[in-house]
Amino acid sequence: MKKVGPHSAVSRVVKLKRDGRALAPDERYDANIDHILRAAAVVFSERSFGLASIRDIAAQARISFPRIYYYLRNKEEILYLISRRAFEELLRRAGDAARSTPDASARLRQFISGHLDYHMNNLAEMKVLVREADSLSGRYQADIARLKREYSRLCRKMIEQLAEENGHPLDRDRSRIITSLLFGSMNWFYTWYDPARDYEQRARIMDEVYRMAAGAIIGG
Amino acid sequence: MKKVGPHSAVSRVVKLKRDGRALAPDERYDANIDHILRAAAVVFSERSFGLASIRDIAAQARISFPRIYYYLRNKEEILYLISRRAFEELLRRAGDAARSTPDASARLRQFISGHLDYHMNNLAEMKVLVREADSLSGRYQADIARLKREYSRLCRKMIEQLAEENGHPLDRDRSRIITSLLFGSMNWFYTWYDPARDYEQRARIMDEVYRMAAGAIIGG
Repeated sequence: MKKVGPHSAVSRVVKLKRDGRALAPDERYDANIDHILRAAAVVFSERSFGLASIRDIAAQARISFPRIYYYLRNKEEILYLISRRAFEELLRRAGDAARSTPDASARLRQFISGHLDYHMNNLAEMKVLVREADSLSGRYQADIARLKREYSRLCRKMIEQLAEENGHPLDRDRSRIITSLLFGSMNWFYTWYDPARDYEQRARIMDEVYRMAAGAIIGG
Repeated sequence: MKKVGPHSAVSRVVKLKRDGRALAPDERYDANIDHILRAAAVVFSERSFGLASIRDIAAQARISFPRIYYYLRNKEEILYLISRRAFEELLRRAGDAARSTPDASARLRQFISGHLDYHMNNLAEMKVLVREADSLSGRYQADIARLKREYSRLCRKMIEQLAEENGHPLDRDRSRIITSLLFGSMNWFYTWYDPARDYEQRARIMDEVYRMAAGAIIGG
């Protein structure tokens, strides 16, 4: 994580223990940013990006209002960093899935599991990503759009490979449509997933998503 | 459409010609509300419900600011009416699909076509429905939640009937999960549907959605 605040944090850092060892100044700085971004995702998911204020985020994070500006420039940078971290992690998982096995079906299954597992563990962040997709502008918007395209491209490639492996190659329009529908079935998730009820069903949900995708890719 | 404004509109109505016949006062009143709701859906879809103002809606509708209040109480009533009209039309279509044929597969196809056709022709309204699902409160929220549950129930029943017809009845969790995933694949639509590119692909998109659902319901 690069430093994004206007000042160097190093001199003001207080060392904290985690896992029995002292945190280096940079780690402490990053941990504080993590904490603020987590709180901001909750606030954005509840109040929307447009209505949320830096004061709301400070209250949720239980830190002082000016302290947020020590780490982060403004509300848009916060949304940008939430989005960038999410897509970096999703891309890392997708890359692992793409390299995991010569079996195209197993690769797509792993991609779906990685996406849904991230979603289940980061419901506030995913809700923000889905609902605030248009709220960034300028280079922030361009940078996230690039990560999103790359992520979508990896998924589409896995879909095309599964179709080829089954002897039914897809034309460009079909692989694009199926990719979009698959993301829809997964990204709608935050609206209905209730951990108390659905946690036990995790494996089943992932399996149903795969069966839906496979139905369009290789089904009758 | 019941009158929802605080005043009776009848005495102030100016008759306009449409299809060569004079509009009755009530029709004129309803046409004005339609026009305002259409404009409001565009404003909410672009600015979000939270950030949009009645002034923005008046500007989009090209009518005077106080005139909105002649027809509608406040912003929340506008969102409520946009949502209610959408779900009433979607429920009407779903009811038609449920009664259309003894073939469960054809019924589910018709349900999917009805939903996507509405979505394609009302992109602003659908974006608002999807993104502002949590923005209503009180009896407005309760009324829309009821319509939504009813709509979801009709879809789930068609899914269960298709599974039974194919000799693989679904348990409650599976039919619930598949219903949610199907709505996801359809409700994500506004994020990627580009009429200039995808209008020609309408039938194909509907077909892929059906194939996905069928993949989970009756696929291998």
